[in-house]
Amino acid sequence: MIMSLTDFVESGNTRLDQQLLFSAEIDKMTDVLRRTLLINKSRRENDAEHSWHIATMAMLFSEYTVEPVNVSRAVQMCVVHDIVEIDAGDTFAYDVQGNSDKAEREKEAADKLFAKLPPDQGEMIRSLWEEFDAMETPDAKYAACMDRLQPFLHNTLTDGHTWDEGKVARESVEKRMAVIKEFMPEVYKWVAANIDRSVQKGWLAP
Amino acid sequence: MIMSLTDFVESGNTRLDQQLLFSAEIDKMTDVLRRTLLINKSRRENDAEHSWHIATMAMLFSEYTVEPVNVSRAVQMCVVHDIVEIDAGDTFAYDVQGNSDKAEREKEAADKLFAKLPPDQGEMIRSLWEEFDAMETPDAKYAACMDRLQPFLHNTLTDGHTWDEGKVARESVEKRMAVIKEFMPEVYKWVAANIDRSVQKGWLAP
Repeated sequence: MIMSLTDFVESGNTRLDQQLLFSAEIDKMTDVLRRTLLINKSRRENDAEHSWHIATMAMLFSEYTVEPVNVSRAVQMCVVHDIVEIDAGDTFAYDVQGNSDKAEREKEAADKLFAKLPPDQGEMIRSLWEEFDAMETPDAKYAACMDRLQPFLHNTLTDGHTWDEGKVARESVEKRMAVIKEFMPEVYKWVAANIDRSVQKGWLAP
Repeated sequence: MIMSLTDFVESGNTRLDQQLLFSAEIDKMTDVLRRTLLINKSRRENDAEHSWHIATMAMLFSEYTVEPVNVSRAVQMCVVHDIVEIDAGDTFAYDVQGNSDKAEREKEAADKLFAKLPPDQGEMIRSLWEEFDAMETPDAKYAACMDRLQPFLHNTLTDGHTWDEGKVARESVEKRMAVIKEFMPEVYKWVAANIDRSVQKGWLAP
């Protein structure tokens, strides 16, 4: 893996060098694989693809939220919400053990990763990520809904691939989708109908 | 390729169905390959990865623009700037013939693709894309700078892969980077120094 100041000419501006190096560093998001398949089933999707997909979706679904959201902020939250996984790795949503130390692993990754940026920008991205992760503000709830709706859509269109592989039960998916039920009830109706169908098809354990 | 209303239960809300189908459709961006290599050189990057990468970079470089920009708008422009390539395909920046009918191919793709969305949202995304493409407003110029800086960074870190493969000359790269020279002169100093080095290394024809 290339990626040091010796690999390109320095700019003479330390701040700009930090920003360029961070830009190079985050290309590693293409190498963090998720459990979800692409809709064409050719392979697992990666974090860069997933983050782009939910950022785009965040531009489309805000009319269904029960509280107003700032779409621009939510889009940016979607863009950066998984960057810590460059160091912490992706944790499967339905992996109980993996999720037990997820917070700690991601905090360490954030300390390491965001320190590469100029302090004000490291803080800006870290705040967005922490807000996303806490899932308390309307913008964070909306971004979290996109982060759950997109893989749900993929699973629904790939014969429940991730659920089937992980022997996931209906109850776990309902728990994972709870933020959509609370924050986007109109969208949840569609989710609920497809959970029913997925159980009928045998993709989800009843 | 799956992707029709028969593959998941309809929501009973036509608008929501359109938005969900469009969300599934755009996953095809993962299948549009660019000439640029990932920085780890493992493979060519795709449009979803590239779009995510420049959207993230747009959150970091606005301090260098000669006119103020609206970062939120620029991020959204980056997110959607290549969606028409799902139908039109990626056109190599240094391919003279491919670029001669690019505008026409992309307009047809836009007509087809954005018609899948509810009209107000199709129009919203189309406007952002057209603004990006025209490269006249400050936000569009800034997004265009990111769209050029990111592959430049990749080329610089992958031994000039794309330039070398395409037998690209210094002058062509300078022309492509002109918007950075005009709109982000501090960043262009770094670009210029690395163009010089790339010529010295033999990655770019003098």
